[in-house]
Amino acid sequence: MFLHPTMALDADLAAWLKLSLAPGLTGAGLRRLLGEYGGPARVLEASRAALARHVTDAVAASIKETSADAALATVAAWLEDPSNHVVTLADGDYPPALLQTVDPPPLLYVKGRLELLARPAIAVVGSRNATPQGAANAEAFARTLSEAGLTIVSGLALGIDAAAHRGGLAGTASSVAVLGTGADIVYPARNRALAHELAARGAIVSEYPLGTRPLAPNFPRRNRLISGLALGCLVVEAAADSGSLITARLATEQGREVFAIPGSIHSPLARGCHALIKQGAKLVETAADILEELRLPPPPPSAAADTGGESPLRDVLAALGYDPCDLDTLATRCGKSIAETAALLTQLELDGYVTLLPGGLYQRLAR
Amino acid sequence: MFLHPTMALDADLAAWLKLSLAPGLTGAGLRRLLGEYGGPARVLEASRAALARHVTDAVAASIKETSADAALATVAAWLEDPSNHVVTLADGDYPPALLQTVDPPPLLYVKGRLELLARPAIAVVGSRNATPQGAANAEAFARTLSEAGLTIVSGLALGIDAAAHRGGLAGTASSVAVLGTGADIVYPARNRALAHELAARGAIVSEYPLGTRPLAPNFPRRNRLISGLALGCLVVEAAADSGSLITARLATEQGREVFAIPGSIHSPLARGCHALIKQGAKLVETAADILEELRLPPPPPSAAADTGGESPLRDVLAALGYDPCDLDTLATRCGKSIAETAALLTQLELDGYVTLLPGGLYQRLAR
Repeated sequence: MFLHPTMALDADLAAWLKLSLAPGLTGAGLRRLLGEYGGPARVLEASRAALARHVTDAVAASIKETSADAALATVAAWLEDPSNHVVTLADGDYPPALLQTVDPPPLLYVKGRLELLARPAIAVVGSRNATPQGAANAEAFARTLSEAGLTIVSGLALGIDAAAHRGGLAGTASSVAVLGTGADIVYPARNRALAHELAARGAIVSEYPLGTRPLAPNFPRRNRLISGLALGCLVVEAAADSGSLITARLATEQGREVFAIPGSIHSPLARGCHALIKQGAKLVETAADILEELRLPPPPPSAAADTGGESPLRDVLAALGYDPCDLDTLATRCGKSIAETAALLTQLELDGYVTLLPGGLYQRLAR
Repeated sequence: MFLHPTMALDADLAAWLKLSLAPGLTGAGLRRLLGEYGGPARVLEASRAALARHVTDAVAASIKETSADAALATVAAWLEDPSNHVVTLADGDYPPALLQTVDPPPLLYVKGRLELLARPAIAVVGSRNATPQGAANAEAFARTLSEAGLTIVSGLALGIDAAAHRGGLAGTASSVAVLGTGADIVYPARNRALAHELAARGAIVSEYPLGTRPLAPNFPRRNRLISGLALGCLVVEAAADSGSLITARLATEQGREVFAIPGSIHSPLARGCHALIKQGAKLVETAADILEELRLPPPPPSAAADTGGESPLRDVLAALGYDPCDLDTLATRCGKSIAETAALLTQLELDGYVTLLPGGLYQRLAR
């Protein structure tokens, strides 16, 4: 017997999907109707005239008349992959952080680890045209924050976003990409491998119907989910007109903390961060600054310092102990070159494990 | 007839000098005695027992018993140069800004343009081990601020201080150096030429007796005068343990605005500035940021853009006009290379004459 794919969908979910796909019906309009009727099936049962008391007549008509069969079949087929999920405002799995925002999407398409959306998270965003140092900063901050238990949320753009996702995936709390396209579309194409890794070990989220192509207006709207899913938003590099500043503004409006990494006054990619700091964002120099501001404990040293099989970072930490020590002595103790030791110390300092005291002495920070 | 040099000193000034030179008598102690007796001559006439009711017996003894003849002769000889001055708390020439501080020195030795000490001023300080970019920033900010009418106050140290003095001297409001040595001692020796220029076209100030050699404790104390003479304090580059942070703290305590230039999180010389911004200092990217915060008008464009006989900066401003324009077009209009035009635009941007709009367009700022 032939089973129509739509049949595979739970009736309630099918009703949610139909409403979410009705042209012209906004999230706010749908939430209003759900409030009036108590559930999506009841909304669909209402007459056009009844609906038109709560939305425009054109939208009421679109709810009653649009056939969503093809789209529902697409969703049903997509859901055959057990790593794909659709969650609605009524589901227990709906991200709790988004419920605290003023405009939560009625329905989310999620590819990957759904449970990550309920974890404490931080948004890490910035320029697509990042400098190499900016990308390295994004990755290092994200890795340390992920080790400290914060899932890294970003937008899968090139530059800072991609580096932030990589850092998040390298840590224990992984990473979530919020797309401005359908959850089944990878944009930009250059991030295909990263998107696959996020789907496998992190999560990809979109409020847009499957198959939605990159459309300019969707990206700024998407940004409210990046900030909304997170406790705070870190801007790593941003030009004066960067879209990251929109995300930061939305974060502020949502009551989230905004953090910005400063840079040279001659770097165009520091302008956006400096503007944010002037407006009250916290200037941060290390991931530890962010954890402190969010009142979260730092990551376990062994985990963060043990990246990969060998652990040069842990070697340096061990050689340092808890007494102040200069670079030359440390290099001798570790059996490494001065340059290599200095580079490792910089990483450890960035990660909040050591601090540089007056007189060029390094001090391990107690945890 | 032999005229003893002391004879050349006004009796009242001689009394001020004697008291200021009495070992153990602090500025606070002297101000207390002056408050009790009404003037320095009256203090000197008081008995040791009477004085000891207001200061310790040892200090009372030192006031009554110390012979200051040799020192007074030195001062009298120094004052034969008409560019040298001694001003006391009772003089109309005493810097008004210092009178608003809690610990104004009873007496100041001033070499050069005494009137500069009554002008609106800004302190510009930072690391002795400045980076070339840091020194260039200090000089550019100081020049623009000086053009805008703010006298540049600093400490004649190597690095940022020296660059700030040079920038101040290049502008119209000149520069003042506050020394931790006697006003007749140049320290460090490498700044000899700069000190001579400051004495000729700016001013050199010290509260320490002539001949006072560089003594470590005098420098931090001296910093309260650098900040006290100014409306605000700009820190350009400073390590985490920099003496400039003392000046910034004193500025805050004196109710002065603190400004700091940010930098890379990987630059040790940005640490101090970042720490200040975290504590509430204003992050500044241009001299215009400072002028705006102090509610002062920007410098006249023709003056600041006209440095030297020829005026490449003014050429670029003229070519730009008041409509947005891209770099290539501007370079063609000016008949300069792209690199040269870009460098001039950066200077103009730093000085607050132009701003970079989205899309790489430069916009001249209306004044």
